[in-house]
Amino acid sequence: MQFNKITENIIKQLEAILGKANVVVDEEKMEMYSRDETSDKLWEKMPEVVIKPENAQQIAEVVKLANRELVPITPRGGGSGLAAGAVPLHGGMVLSLEKMNKILEIDKENLFMVLEPGVTTGEVQKEAKELNLFYAGDPCSAESSFIGGNVATNAGGNKAIKYGVTGRHVYGLEVVMPDGEIVVYGGKNVKDVTFYDMVHLMVGSEGTLGIITKIWLKLMPLPQYVADLLVPFPDMQSAIKVVPKIMTAGIIPTAVEFMDSLSIKAAELYLNKKLPFSDAGAYIICEVDGNTELQVQEDYETIGKLCKENGALEVFVADNISTQDRIWKSRKAYAEALRMLSPVYCMEDIVVPIANIPAALDAIEKIAAKFECKIPSAGHAGDGNIHATILREDRDEHAWHDLKDSVLAEIYDAVYALEGNLSGEHGIGAKRISAMYKHMTEGQKKVLKTVKEAFDPNNIMNPGKVVLLGTIAES
Amino acid sequence: MQFNKITENIIKQLEAILGKANVVVDEEKMEMYSRDETSDKLWEKMPEVVIKPENAQQIAEVVKLANRELVPITPRGGGSGLAAGAVPLHGGMVLSLEKMNKILEIDKENLFMVLEPGVTTGEVQKEAKELNLFYAGDPCSAESSFIGGNVATNAGGNKAIKYGVTGRHVYGLEVVMPDGEIVVYGGKNVKDVTFYDMVHLMVGSEGTLGIITKIWLKLMPLPQYVADLLVPFPDMQSAIKVVPKIMTAGIIPTAVEFMDSLSIKAAELYLNKKLPFSDAGAYIICEVDGNTELQVQEDYETIGKLCKENGALEVFVADNISTQDRIWKSRKAYAEALRMLSPVYCMEDIVVPIANIPAALDAIEKIAAKFECKIPSAGHAGDGNIHATILREDRDEHAWHDLKDSVLAEIYDAVYALEGNLSGEHGIGAKRISAMYKHMTEGQKKVLKTVKEAFDPNNIMNPGKVVLLGTIAES
Repeated sequence: MQFNKITENIIKQLEAILGKANVVVDEEKMEMYSRDETSDKLWEKMPEVVIKPENAQQIAEVVKLANRELVPITPRGGGSGLAAGAVPLHGGMVLSLEKMNKILEIDKENLFMVLEPGVTTGEVQKEAKELNLFYAGDPCSAESSFIGGNVATNAGGNKAIKYGVTGRHVYGLEVVMPDGEIVVYGGKNVKDVTFYDMVHLMVGSEGTLGIITKIWLKLMPLPQYVADLLVPFPDMQSAIKVVPKIMTAGIIPTAVEFMDSLSIKAAELYLNKKLPFSDAGAYIICEVDGNTELQVQEDYETIGKLCKENGALEVFVADNISTQDRIWKSRKAYAEALRMLSPVYCMEDIVVPIANIPAALDAIEKIAAKFECKIPSAGHAGDGNIHATILREDRDEHAWHDLKDSVLAEIYDAVYALEGNLSGEHGIGAKRISAMYKHMTEGQKKVLKTVKEAFDPNNIMNPGKVVLLGTIAES
Repeated sequence: MQFNKITENIIKQLEAILGKANVVVDEEKMEMYSRDETSDKLWEKMPEVVIKPENAQQIAEVVKLANRELVPITPRGGGSGLAAGAVPLHGGMVLSLEKMNKILEIDKENLFMVLEPGVTTGEVQKEAKELNLFYAGDPCSAESSFIGGNVATNAGGNKAIKYGVTGRHVYGLEVVMPDGEIVVYGGKNVKDVTFYDMVHLMVGSEGTLGIITKIWLKLMPLPQYVADLLVPFPDMQSAIKVVPKIMTAGIIPTAVEFMDSLSIKAAELYLNKKLPFSDAGAYIICEVDGNTELQVQEDYETIGKLCKENGALEVFVADNISTQDRIWKSRKAYAEALRMLSPVYCMEDIVVPIANIPAALDAIEKIAAKFECKIPSAGHAGDGNIHATILREDRDEHAWHDLKDSVLAEIYDAVYALEGNLSGEHGIGAKRISAMYKHMTEGQKKVLKTVKEAFDPNNIMNPGKVVLLGTIAES
């Protein structure tokens, strides 16, 4: 794609729309907008301008301007993405939603929160909880990620088994479409078939089909009892083989997570704290919740028994918040903790049908052995969603890229052979687009292109992410 | 829209694709394909040909033929629709999915059922239950509706409060797109962001964007304990006012239904059986389920207590299947039972935020008084989804259409004023399209048209339903 450069004249027009304070061209101030958490020079690029709109009308004007001038817009939430989705790889402007950070309404009668995209996920969780309500979205990056980014990537997180991914909680969206029209889809009706389901076409479209400016989030009653289990196993395979057993035992746990031995050791280093059985081959972490203590107790006893029958070294039950927080800290620290082993790495987000998790982890182990590299894994075992992470360690730039390309190709091939897919929650962004196209059918490619071209014929909305209009080389 | 007529030559081509036995032109045999359950001459039209494909490849060939010859295709499931969605109002062919009625796989490890669209919803429920599994979709028409039709309309049903509408259980679809390409979206991965969410764009699109030929349905563990409550109230308003209280009491019931006094009397007539407190002003019917008896008991006691504190005449608890079946029979018979009062009627499917249900029912009561007609109501109170039904009784054709048009216009205006929408589960079809367009913004209209034209530029897929390419008069 060929785009125009941001000119002095465009800057002036942006300042007229947004006010001078909301248009940033200072390189130092723009630096943090040149990357996300993907941690690879390949996925960094300085924007030509960063803008900080305060409302949907301003965004609509900016989008119209971008169409007139043929300059790309890269929308950006909290910057915690792991697929370079918010990196302006074609230059142009980064549109940061950081100033649209208001909770507009908490409707206790209808159990809805209506809010702007720049509110952090952690604040959504906290504000709901204070009213004895519950927002079930729970990505590990909740403290820094924006709810708008969660919606744009259809973020998963730790409670998706029972409560579903982000999209399940989204009942309405206000979107600035790629032609600059502000359109509302859905709202507070919990059932609604009065339209095509544009809400869920927008969810997960990573800013390529419009910019989300308002969100109607469904809340639930807060479960009154929660218990967590930390279960060390002697090795990865025995740990992971218990997962399909838990998932078909007749209960619906809130979370079934796993960490392999390298991930446990990294967490121990990072938290600077001894973890129980930290020389175990793997941890399984489970959460159950409910409205009666007995129900929760029966559920965790069922899980505990299954684990013990299948080789668990021990079953720790945490039914108070401080012990629960300690358990989750080790799991949630995964992304940061691995940097203790290798500051640069490549974190993947593959997903397979749950019965195929043992085979997927087995394949990854074999690939690591073949290429003599370390690939620690952790993730959402109950969803079949595995964060396998290739560590660079002390390899030079050239060796690292060679290794990464070869390992990724083999991992992806293994995943597709197991009826899996590239990404369960982190998204495609720019990072996985060529791998995705390699595995799509011609029919699927045509459909992606049809949707994108219908809404964004000038390809100004986050070009080069999720969908290609030209070839990969051109994108 | 101008379409060509079905010619002898087209019939020959269809026979070559499908075999003679699967191409029907006999008027008598086609008669049942000229209508659905909307029960209004306005929404009946004889097809020019009915075809019964046996696989996706045949459908793909038919779709290509329809594009070449510019003849419309109206896909049809069980014919239990209530919005004329399956009626061939522009002539052409009805494509019945009745021969694609196989359950292809029940995957007990991954909790998925993979099946063709022509399986009845009742069979899906039954087959799952036999394996101690649970399909949570539960439309009242389950015995006759096809799962493909449930997906195409995003059917709701009685368990949507806790388990969501049909779309929530759909993780994958094979679709013959309007250009004849067979494309698979999703599959057995429970988290998947490796594409735009085409699955949910297809769900509820009523056959206007393609024909669904295979479905990946998520199953769940069968809840081990279920209890139902039948709660008579002295009048509609006291009954309905308890609903938002139940919905914010900290539990998630499986169902919260209501029936007004006319609906109760109609059910009594239809079932030819005395119902308890059948002179009550209204019934509330609740269901709770769970894995421990105690949990279920606590939940129904909470609901029972709330009802008693808010004017219930009695609280009947049914914790065995035969009493439960009896309670549900009275509610599920609604559509048939009303024909005892008036063989012709107009059943609506409005939805409002749950806190606005009392106001919506109040508005409907006033409209009935103003126009001196009967509008019995029943429905899914916990979802805000109300089936208000205008009875024709002994009015002549002219008076009936005048009445219906005036009453519908006022009901819809009232619903939109209460932040509601036209249809919670029955869909738009042809029946509600002009009302929907009246209340849409220009931006929304443009988006519908953009999606439809991108995929189906010749408008051959179920023209005149959900979306208009020309004006209403042309459609």
